[in-house]
Amino acid sequence: MSNQEIKVTLSTSKKEKPKSDQLPFGKYFSDHMFIMDYKPELGWYDPRIVPYGPIELDPAASILHYGQTIFEGMKAYVDKDGGARIFRPEMNVKRLNRSNDRMCIPQVDEDIVLEAVKKIVSIDQDWIPNAPGTALYIRPYVFATEANINVVPSKEYKLMIILSPVGAYFKEGLNPVKIAVEDKYVRAVPGGTGEAKTGGNYAGSFRVQENVAKKGFSQVLWLDGAEHKYIEEVGASNVFFKISGEVVTPALTGSILHGVTRDSVIKLLKHWGVPVTERRISIEELYAASLEGQLEEAFSSGTAAVISPIGQLTWKDKDLVINDNKIGELTQKVYDTLTGIQYGTEEDVFNWVTEIK
Amino acid sequence: MSNQEIKVTLSTSKKEKPKSDQLPFGKYFSDHMFIMDYKPELGWYDPRIVPYGPIELDPAASILHYGQTIFEGMKAYVDKDGGARIFRPEMNVKRLNRSNDRMCIPQVDEDIVLEAVKKIVSIDQDWIPNAPGTALYIRPYVFATEANINVVPSKEYKLMIILSPVGAYFKEGLNPVKIAVEDKYVRAVPGGTGEAKTGGNYAGSFRVQENVAKKGFSQVLWLDGAEHKYIEEVGASNVFFKISGEVVTPALTGSILHGVTRDSVIKLLKHWGVPVTERRISIEELYAASLEGQLEEAFSSGTAAVISPIGQLTWKDKDLVINDNKIGELTQKVYDTLTGIQYGTEEDVFNWVTEIK
Ligand SMILES: Cc1ncc(COP(=O)(O)O)c(C=O)c1O
Ligand SMILES: Cc1ncc(COP(=O)(O)O)c(C=O)c1O
Repeated sequence: MSNQEIKVTLSTSKKEKPKSDQLPFGKYFSDHMFIMDYKPELGWYDPRIVPYGPIELDPAASILHYGQTIFEGMKAYVDKDGGARIFRPEMNVKRLNRSNDRMCIPQVDEDIVLEAVKKIVSIDQDWIPNAPGTALYIRPYVFATEANINVVPSKEYKLMIILSPVGAYFKEGLNPVKIAVEDKYVRAVPGGTGEAKTGGNYAGSFRVQENVAKKGFSQVLWLDGAEHKYIEEVGASNVFFKISGEVVTPALTGSILHGVTRDSVIKLLKHWGVPVTERRISIEELYAASLEGQLEEAFSSGTAAVISPIGQLTWKDKDLVINDNKIGELTQKVYDTLTGIQYGTEEDVFNWVTEIK
Repeated sequence: MSNQEIKVTLSTSKKEKPKSDQLPFGKYFSDHMFIMDYKPELGWYDPRIVPYGPIELDPAASILHYGQTIFEGMKAYVDKDGGARIFRPEMNVKRLNRSNDRMCIPQVDEDIVLEAVKKIVSIDQDWIPNAPGTALYIRPYVFATEANINVVPSKEYKLMIILSPVGAYFKEGLNPVKIAVEDKYVRAVPGGTGEAKTGGNYAGSFRVQENVAKKGFSQVLWLDGAEHKYIEEVGASNVFFKISGEVVTPALTGSILHGVTRDSVIKLLKHWGVPVTERRISIEELYAASLEGQLEEAFSSGTAAVISPIGQLTWKDKDLVINDNKIGELTQKVYDTLTGIQYGTEEDVFNWVTEIK
């Protein structure tokens, strides 16, 4: 399968590109898309890059009924010499297959997806924006297409990749954001689908996101689904706290996404000799640390915003203000180093970047 | 909105109908479909019945990424005089809006959906199969269509209705089935999306369903997501137990679907003077009752199978055989009465049936 060739049909017209300093997240798409289909008797077949355009689905296509779908997200950056660089794509492709497994979607050959990512980025390379903080967001996704509404896994799938030039994820930029601790709704629970990057996890969070946005918060901090006690994630990001000089982040206990940025942050901190621990952290513990002045910094990590400092956590009627609502020193260093590696201004010590020729 | 007229464009050709005694669940679809669109500036607009056929979606359509979707399921039956009858459609339409609310999808006018259901069933009335146990399954569903991959609720939606002639849901027919009690994976948790009929809940259950099917079980019994202790549902059905003459069913504690069949069973039992209680039931309690010979009957309830007797529950290494693996007397009576009302051979004491002229 990995020696299947990707057929390319180039678009005969080029869309106008949005201004690179006015990019909302995920609204504009490049000139091409990658598609590959799955049928039991053929496996994954017909990998192709074609002009971006609508697809046809039967009204009974499983995805429209039972949400059997997974996705990935990574970014391509342009360096000062105009070279395209993708950050740790092999991690995303591995996670794609782990999500597939949880959602009963057949495994794909990781090499062909990686090749497809590189090929479509190189074809639409002029879509990588170059204003500071911008990138070309790469969205691989798989969805169930069989026209059958029996409640069983679909027999047919499409894997697609689309590309979207994106600006900074948070309107606030690198300014600290206000986060609401959610104690009623939950995102995920061990035994559920929280470790998979699957649609339902996200649709399920919209109600909460809307509730907290109305109250002036930019994101929600999720507590665990069983006891509503332990910290899990912030919005669609992982989360880190610096407490008395030590960095802690929730351990991957079964309901938390294994973030690529999370992994990168941990590796960087260890490389620098900063103590970092993955463990359960209760919201009470965080509150106590905050009262004693030990909660020094907090930030979330994810592909979309890379690193986002947290200035305030509101839990019930308590406001935990962190570092006077200013970005912490370590947070800034993590951000600078990660984005430096991504844009090619810092040495890529871990060999994280795939360059596109 | 409720005085919006449903435009009808009839199909110029008619598909061949499958044999009414060879109907798998959800594979064949009738000649027409209902569609209505949503845009913020127009609300729900352009309700129409058109020939069944493929729809077009942008590759960035929200449904393909974040699973913002809900669905409903009800059935139309044909009586001995050829009249079409729909079972409690107003309950499904109410639940559709409750699901919409949880998933941040705009509310729809319930009257127009009800009217659409009746109209499309009357247009495709000759698709209602008439072999015993068969019906025309009615599938309303809503999904997010905006071409935007920002992780926020979609601004645009489609509500569609398709119709599928279906046979008995379980291959076993009305024979008691073997159910595996699942103690690792969970379907839902309070604060999650379990009360909404939304895609992600179903895709999330495929892995488990596949695991237990391999071991020879026809369904899974879900325990609660927090403690893995209390009984919630069986597959995509609610569940009832008769213990020492009393019928018990899990209370609707936030993670269980409010089944229309469940509600109908409870109303019937009360009408008959059979004691019925909605409360938490632990799997330990059930096991103890079984050991003492008090677990007299068990069945699941849902639109697809109506009533399905449970012959055996396997929990860890324990087999709880119920009523000697034979259908219980009360289970049979509930099944006979419900299906009798549905097919029009029993008096419709509760006024549950909507007749289509
Ligand atoms: C739920 C959730 N948590 C965490 C993350 C962060 O993961 P990554 O760093 O791989 O982007 C994401 C996605 O970006 C996510 O969707
Ligand atoms: C998860 C779940 N539980 C229970 C039911 C039973 O509900 P109803 O009786 O309305 O069909 C369904 C759907 O049919 C379901 O999907």
